[in-house]
Amino acid sequence: MATTLIDGIAELVTNDPDQGDGSPLGLIHDAAVVADGSTIHWVGRAVNAPAADRRIGATGRSVIPGFVDSHTHLVFVGDRSAEFAARMAGERYDGGGIASTVATTRAASDDELRTALAERVFELHSQGTTTIEIKSGYGLTVDDERRILQLARAVTEETTFLGGHVVPPGAERDEYVRLVSGEMLAACAPYARWIDVFCEPASAHAFDAHESRTILTAGAAAGLGLRVHANQLAAGPGVQLAVELGAVSVDHCTYLTGADVDALATSDTVATLLPGVEFSTRSPYPDARRLVDAGVTVALATDCNPGTSFTSSMPFAVALAVREMGLTPAEALWSATAGAALSLRRTDIGRIAVGARPHLTMLAAPSHVHLAYRPGVPLARPIQLGERT
Amino acid sequence: MATTLIDGIAELVTNDPDQGDGSPLGLIHDAAVVADGSTIHWVGRAVNAPAADRRIGATGRSVIPGFVDSHTHLVFVGDRSAEFAARMAGERYDGGGIASTVATTRAASDDELRTALAERVFELHSQGTTTIEIKSGYGLTVDDERRILQLARAVTEETTFLGGHVVPPGAERDEYVRLVSGEMLAACAPYARWIDVFCEPASAHAFDAHESRTILTAGAAAGLGLRVHANQLAAGPGVQLAVELGAVSVDHCTYLTGADVDALATSDTVATLLPGVEFSTRSPYPDARRLVDAGVTVALATDCNPGTSFTSSMPFAVALAVREMGLTPAEALWSATAGAALSLRRTDIGRIAVGARPHLTMLAAPSHVHLAYRPGVPLARPIQLGERT
Repeated sequence: MATTLIDGIAELVTNDPDQGDGSPLGLIHDAAVVADGSTIHWVGRAVNAPAADRRIGATGRSVIPGFVDSHTHLVFVGDRSAEFAARMAGERYDGGGIASTVATTRAASDDELRTALAERVFELHSQGTTTIEIKSGYGLTVDDERRILQLARAVTEETTFLGGHVVPPGAERDEYVRLVSGEMLAACAPYARWIDVFCEPASAHAFDAHESRTILTAGAAAGLGLRVHANQLAAGPGVQLAVELGAVSVDHCTYLTGADVDALATSDTVATLLPGVEFSTRSPYPDARRLVDAGVTVALATDCNPGTSFTSSMPFAVALAVREMGLTPAEALWSATAGAALSLRRTDIGRIAVGARPHLTMLAAPSHVHLAYRPGVPLARPIQLGERT
Repeated sequence: MATTLIDGIAELVTNDPDQGDGSPLGLIHDAAVVADGSTIHWVGRAVNAPAADRRIGATGRSVIPGFVDSHTHLVFVGDRSAEFAARMAGERYDGGGIASTVATTRAASDDELRTALAERVFELHSQGTTTIEIKSGYGLTVDDERRILQLARAVTEETTFLGGHVVPPGAERDEYVRLVSGEMLAACAPYARWIDVFCEPASAHAFDAHESRTILTAGAAAGLGLRVHANQLAAGPGVQLAVELGAVSVDHCTYLTGADVDALATSDTVATLLPGVEFSTRSPYPDARRLVDAGVTVALATDCNPGTSFTSSMPFAVALAVREMGLTPAEALWSATAGAALSLRRTDIGRIAVGARPHLTMLAAPSHVHLAYRPGVPLARPIQLGERT
């Protein structure tokens, strides 16, 4: 396979503290990388770089690991901009709007969904995101959830069964929990790596601790790894349930008690923060600083969805994490790459090291600090090395 | 000159309440526009559109007037990302960092400045901005201020002499005010349409009311229109001074008293809000809702500069105005186009109407609401119609 030398890199973010400056970002200045379409073969100072079949100049630029967007809901059709405008005018979000996307998504053809998904995947990729997790959850019937996961699986390995998104309109709660944990799970598990549930007793639409436990336990028995939506609207049982069950990630974490932080700090569960949600629902931001200081592993993701966070921009999440959540620019970038990779239990992405996948994103800027210093500016672009990976 | 038909437009924002739905945005659905490289010739429903030499399809898209960025400082070199990171870690902004950009800009060659400026103008344009105001203010000597304005004038008619940005290091205040109002003004006026001053008694580096009055009065006598930076760091005399002197715009307006709002509401002075500054200095946002409700004309701009707001994204300013400043999506878009055009006393831009300039921006979205609904996503692109205008 043809190799490419990317050289002249002003600042290379490796996320490998054994390389470069010894910081968590493992910064190397005046750096180079050699990769082919499937693997990184060499990383180091440009002056020592080996030859390759072709060359890409990155003079004056920062090169970072491609963003890992570990929480999205990309398979849907239906616009909810009117709901957004109403919320900005003062209406409260309680999860009820999900039903409108369920209705439009169920009514869409496979082709319509596939086209909408392809456009969104392209949009994320063009902003420097190279790994995307995609959840179901806008089907909420056996056939619709399976269909969504089949469509998602065609574009990513990181698919998550979220039949437990909300109780669909007209369904009886206990019966729906049985369906999600039984027939729906059985139909969906072949197309999913993960299972997730919206554990939020504060929402009439979502699931309480007992229901969430039933769904997650069934998913684990079916061989799926666990993720949990929790503590988005109020403090609640979700974070501690996620830790107890060994979930890889608990997402949102907007409202946390001291006991929640302690539970996370003594676990391997990643806290995935989704600041686009707080931006677009005008909610208080989670305190990322407190989590990092307590020793919790923090990831950042977009939660790209049509209701509460229709951003697809990981740089925007980074900028918000710095402005609103107390992370340094370096911590925010680490969370959007290495931290998010950990939430997917992946070591082949989220870092730039020999043997890792060649997921490289170039910034139109000399330093990763510019992701927060230049908010809203489309600075990040993936570097194409042969086939898309 | 060859004409172009842009048709199939899902939503056309004309900013002309006599067209379309009668709202301030003058929305027309299923619309079309015919223009050549210098003028808009026809606007209306697509079914009624006349023929043209070529056609651009905008099916499913919103088309809006190109953004008018009426407050930027684009002529400089020198990175201040370290100052940004320190501020995010808790350091306070007081205007002192401007001196560092003055030093790097003075030391740069014309070619270096011209290249940096061209890259920034392209960056703004590629995000849908079609008119750019550019201030001097990183020279602060007669020769350096004139040089900056000459470079700026090569890319825009909307140039602003800002010798009164800060008192440069080593200069004596009274002597510097005399220089700005005398020899420097005389050298710069041929290359400027406007004069501006940073009236901010709360900053040791900026100018008080008396000094600001001296500089603005001299500028008016030299035939320049007046703009004022005011009330950014604290309430102060700047807003009322601007109104008294008939300034076209007073910019920042972060801290306002009731008397300031009243003065603005009974004047033709536009309040130009710059939410990128509050984002990047972690300051409280100005209350745009209060201003609009009082009858003040509000404009939005980026203040693109390397110290306090290195964003070049007008969509980001719109999204912040909705999330943080109480504007509706429609009001925010109006302020970023028609409002900003008023702050430049222009009627040929900021609206889509027969006879106006063909400054059209297409959104990768069906509605202008998406600018706030999809924060951080690069949705806006200018439509190219022959020569750049």
